[in-house]
Amino acid sequence: MDLLLLAPIGSAIALLFALYQARWVLKQDEGTEQMKSIAAAIREGANAYLKRQYTGVALFFAVMFVILLILAFNGYLTYFVPFAFVTGGFFSGLSGFIGMKIATYANARTTNAAKKSLNFGLRVAFSSGTVMGLTVVGLGLLDLSFWFYFLNWFYRGLEEAARIQNVTSAMLTFGMGASSMALFARVGGGIYTKAADVGADLVGKVEAGIPEDDPRNPAVIADNVGDNVGDVAGMGADLYESYVGSIVSTSALAVAAGLGIKGVTIPMTMAAVGVLASIVGTFFVRSGEKAEQKVLLNALRTGTNLSAILIAILSYFLVTRVLGFEHVGVYFAILSGLVAGVLIGFSTEYFTSDTYKPTQDLSSTSLTGPATVIIGGMSLGMLSTAVPIAIVSAAVLASFYLAGGATNFNQGLYGVAIAAVGMLSTLGITLATDAYGPVADNAGGIAEMSHQDKEVRQRTDALDSLGNTTAATGKGFAIGSAALTALALIAAYKDEIDLIVKKQSLDFKFDISLLNPPVLVGLFIGGMLPFLFSSMTMKAVGRAAQQIVVEVRRQFREIKGLMEGKTKPDYARCVDICTRAAQKEMILPALTAIIVPIVVGLLLGPNAVAGILAGATVTGFVLAIMMANAGGAWDNAKKYIEAGNHGGKGSDAHKAAVVGDTVGDPFKDTSGPSLNILIKLLSMVSVVFGAFILQNALLK
Amino acid sequence: MDLLLLAPIGSAIALLFALYQARWVLKQDEGTEQMKSIAAAIREGANAYLKRQYTGVALFFAVMFVILLILAFNGYLTYFVPFAFVTGGFFSGLSGFIGMKIATYANARTTNAAKKSLNFGLRVAFSSGTVMGLTVVGLGLLDLSFWFYFLNWFYRGLEEAARIQNVTSAMLTFGMGASSMALFARVGGGIYTKAADVGADLVGKVEAGIPEDDPRNPAVIADNVGDNVGDVAGMGADLYESYVGSIVSTSALAVAAGLGIKGVTIPMTMAAVGVLASIVGTFFVRSGEKAEQKVLLNALRTGTNLSAILIAILSYFLVTRVLGFEHVGVYFAILSGLVAGVLIGFSTEYFTSDTYKPTQDLSSTSLTGPATVIIGGMSLGMLSTAVPIAIVSAAVLASFYLAGGATNFNQGLYGVAIAAVGMLSTLGITLATDAYGPVADNAGGIAEMSHQDKEVRQRTDALDSLGNTTAATGKGFAIGSAALTALALIAAYKDEIDLIVKKQSLDFKFDISLLNPPVLVGLFIGGMLPFLFSSMTMKAVGRAAQQIVVEVRRQFREIKGLMEGKTKPDYARCVDICTRAAQKEMILPALTAIIVPIVVGLLLGPNAVAGILAGATVTGFVLAIMMANAGGAWDNAKKYIEAGNHGGKGSDAHKAAVVGDTVGDPFKDTSGPSLNILIKLLSMVSVVFGAFILQNALLK
Repeated sequence: MDLLLLAPIGSAIALLFALYQARWVLKQDEGTEQMKSIAAAIREGANAYLKRQYTGVALFFAVMFVILLILAFNGYLTYFVPFAFVTGGFFSGLSGFIGMKIATYANARTTNAAKKSLNFGLRVAFSSGTVMGLTVVGLGLLDLSFWFYFLNWFYRGLEEAARIQNVTSAMLTFGMGASSMALFARVGGGIYTKAADVGADLVGKVEAGIPEDDPRNPAVIADNVGDNVGDVAGMGADLYESYVGSIVSTSALAVAAGLGIKGVTIPMTMAAVGVLASIVGTFFVRSGEKAEQKVLLNALRTGTNLSAILIAILSYFLVTRVLGFEHVGVYFAILSGLVAGVLIGFSTEYFTSDTYKPTQDLSSTSLTGPATVIIGGMSLGMLSTAVPIAIVSAAVLASFYLAGGATNFNQGLYGVAIAAVGMLSTLGITLATDAYGPVADNAGGIAEMSHQDKEVRQRTDALDSLGNTTAATGKGFAIGSAALTALALIAAYKDEIDLIVKKQSLDFKFDISLLNPPVLVGLFIGGMLPFLFSSMTMKAVGRAAQQIVVEVRRQFREIKGLMEGKTKPDYARCVDICTRAAQKEMILPALTAIIVPIVVGLLLGPNAVAGILAGATVTGFVLAIMMANAGGAWDNAKKYIEAGNHGGKGSDAHKAAVVGDTVGDPFKDTSGPSLNILIKLLSMVSVVFGAFILQNALLK
Repeated sequence: MDLLLLAPIGSAIALLFALYQARWVLKQDEGTEQMKSIAAAIREGANAYLKRQYTGVALFFAVMFVILLILAFNGYLTYFVPFAFVTGGFFSGLSGFIGMKIATYANARTTNAAKKSLNFGLRVAFSSGTVMGLTVVGLGLLDLSFWFYFLNWFYRGLEEAARIQNVTSAMLTFGMGASSMALFARVGGGIYTKAADVGADLVGKVEAGIPEDDPRNPAVIADNVGDNVGDVAGMGADLYESYVGSIVSTSALAVAAGLGIKGVTIPMTMAAVGVLASIVGTFFVRSGEKAEQKVLLNALRTGTNLSAILIAILSYFLVTRVLGFEHVGVYFAILSGLVAGVLIGFSTEYFTSDTYKPTQDLSSTSLTGPATVIIGGMSLGMLSTAVPIAIVSAAVLASFYLAGGATNFNQGLYGVAIAAVGMLSTLGITLATDAYGPVADNAGGIAEMSHQDKEVRQRTDALDSLGNTTAATGKGFAIGSAALTALALIAAYKDEIDLIVKKQSLDFKFDISLLNPPVLVGLFIGGMLPFLFSSMTMKAVGRAAQQIVVEVRRQFREIKGLMEGKTKPDYARCVDICTRAAQKEMILPALTAIIVPIVVGLLLGPNAVAGILAGATVTGFVLAIMMANAGGAWDNAKKYIEAGNHGGKGSDAHKAAVVGDTVGDPFKDTSGPSLNILIKLLSMVSVVFGAFILQNALLK
């Protein structure tokens, strides 16, 4: 059997299982009328947002499509690129959309299930997460398979090496579509969710002194909508991009590594193996009735670890079957990535979960006020970067040398690229644990708003607080794989430039030594971009949150009987403000990511662009980890106090911790998680525009 | 005349002028008995601290001296290195010491002079700054001249190129001594000053509600001591290191650039020209009696701009005289550096002064509480990195190509290195404006504690608030020149490795392409180091501040009549706590900077070390600018509110702004300003240990 067929088969299995799980979730009871109406309001807001977002993004895609067509017309690209660009964007958006749909149907059902038992609540929430996880990998494999078979057929006249080279280089470019879509989804969704969250907290919790998720807060629905459009739809598009990006960039190196078609078969079938392992893993996620974070975390952990072990075993047979035992080093490269992913998860958990010292220490800094909370969180976040950097560094070196990089450089690069695929091969289930978080968060909100029993709310709270840690783990994963993929993408960029130089016999020397001044300048500019980007997105959250603050204050002031719970606030206004703000604010950061490498490339030449990619990868990696972990730790430090430590809810320590949590919101949910997409979008743009830059650069 | 003689002559002039200014300052009246006794207490605390610090550092130097001797004994180094290391450290420490001495004698004198007039106060404070500025450049030139003439004599048997090569490569290593000392001084001093400041504010301002610099606050003397040991002694050692480092690393490239001894003459005599220009500039610093920040800033600005213009003119004649008109490109390289320095100053001012929009906008975020202040300040700081990065990038490219890098690569590198010398050539006067700040700050404190008239306090406040902007400018300068010097240091490191490879005919390929995995891993590790380092130093401030908080609370509780002003607090205890804490806490960060490149080098080889240098330069640069500007802006945003905006002192907005200011304290005065030293120390260690790493590395 042609093992490559595993890819479309895996895709079909993933999508069918997602469908099966979705039907199971939808069969569950959504609860009382009140619960249903809250869920409907959230659903409506989320749909309205996505509709608006997709309209805006469609315009961007149309413009880019035309630009790419013009480039193709002028011989800078093949004609497949514009189309691949569009399908990449389409499937990335679709992944987010489906995930969000099911999440908005699962939230009230989770609340209702939690009435019965903790385990049942967990199962509903986790199943909806599974739908998302398997949809992402299923659609990714579908898109990849389609293009692979189509292009392979199209180039059937060429001999193998040339054929594969053409196929993979065209496939690489659809990563740019996925990245663009992902960036819009993450940034737009991230601004939406945190503007609503911060705005709701600043007036509700801090000024008016009402609890989180209180139905009297006009921004409460927008806050819950935000969880869906940011943490679900945004994340889905993001990880779709990571997943597909790692596979296509590995495939692009296959020919250079001397592996030919087999070098493409490995990452595609690894993904299929991951689908099976993830599905098996999901059956082992169940918990007892003790609402302890550790117990629940173990329930999820069992599933993901089991999947990882399965993959570790199956991929051994896969690699030795496809490549033969002499290439067993590729297997060890995969293993390095897989292990690195698991270790990054542990490190994230250690730094952000309140069962460990760092977050507990952070929560005690709240005793001396908000300033020390901020200083403590910043330094925790900065410190926490050392471990993932060490892990990824070890993985890069291990995969490079184990795959034979010492004697065959390109094979080593292939090893590093496939390590990223190894890390992401568990995506089906890790994404399920990650997407579960916002559903549980919404379920908690609905429990609060529909005045459920204390026991039910305790259960949904337990489910929710776990979400902070799984979310931080998911982010560590996304950025870790981005760092691993970076080397492959720089190599792909170099190959692209080399190819054109050779084809057109240009007089250009690709010199990306650190001592070459344009490279150093590129490093500086690239290193600054994640800071600039984060600044823009944080400012955007600040501005949008300010609008929400003004609106919530207005409603509190003008709507009679609101604070007494006699009248309902105007939820729709806040939803609308967030939607508009997110749409407007996502444009500038996204354009920056696309325009900077092109402009710098045109001014300073292709070497500077390579510097940008490396610089952005380095600071983007470090900054993303810092923001994700600081944000996660602040959130859990606050929860630790709410659990009764340092004076508990309402104490001065709690107020100080809320400040930390609020600062952490845009860190962990807007700016931080966009950085891995930024890194990859920069690379993709450089690859796609490589020929254009090379031939039109001022400095060469 | 041998123009090189200008170096020792310039040194003598600088030191004599510093002496003259010092005598003038000391001739002024120190004021009332109360003022004298406060000043004496500050002086005593500062001396005690420096004594303890120098004892600790001496031990470190002794150990390092022995290690370097052993390396020399084993043929990894010449025997000059250990001695050059010690003198570099000694003079760096001495620069800080002298600057601090005069500052602690000038503070009360400034207060007293402010009784007479604003201009007289400005003159006293600025004159003491001038002492510091000219001492730093004078001692730097002295040390450089001594070693140059001595080594030149020692190697007199060699022909010119070989002789200069040996001389400059030995001189390069005394930068390591200066960097080590500077790091201890900056980190130790920075921890001291901010622990005292944060601790004093947290209990005094926030809890007890007494004003800043209130004599009832037990930490108030420690706070004032801190300004001297951190902002004066630490900064002096720091900029001594920057100054000397830029000159020796330029000289080290002279032979490779084909300029021979003339290539050494240029940076050394440029420094001498800078001395003269700075002295002339100081005579133009005077102000009217209007206590407006803009007027005062212009007074300082006139002096520095005049010096810059003088240097721009004189260095033209210098370069064309020494190198001939065919090398006029070197002059333009110097000019690029000079202009870049001035532009970085403007950019810093724009982002941190409350006369511009960014800081004013930041102060309005305080209306919605501390969380938005923090988010606003972080994003302001992040955004502000774009401008200096663009400026330095332009300067790198301009100086490289103008100096002829397109046809002669090494000459281009020389151009980038000399641009850093050009940037720092105004150091005599820019450091004077910078060192003036803490003196004015102390003067304000003494005015407050000795209950001067409102008018006097308004004058000292005006002098003080200017200090925030000049301090931020000085930091931008230090980090900008570090970024420019980085390329030269990586080149010096490469030359060092190449030399050994050739000498010992080793089989090692120096490959610092971004695609080489050890280089990429080095970039990751190097990129993470500034974050790790900042985390350590911030945590250290947090821990020490916590101790101060506990102590101040204890004194408020236990000392009867303290709050009523009837009894004096026990100032010495707080001074002692800060001293101990700073000593203890400075060790780990400093050792990290020394050990990491050696250990990584031994594991992953010399290529990875080059990656570390580049990675640390990139993130160190961006992070340092972010921290300095965010910190400066938070401080001035608070001052803007205190000036009566957004509700003024005591309002909720003010309280929120104080949180920002407190977070900014370790940002701008501990972690941020240490980063440029970290970058250079990493480079210096790599150069000095290069041979050892190369021959003992596991992976090559």
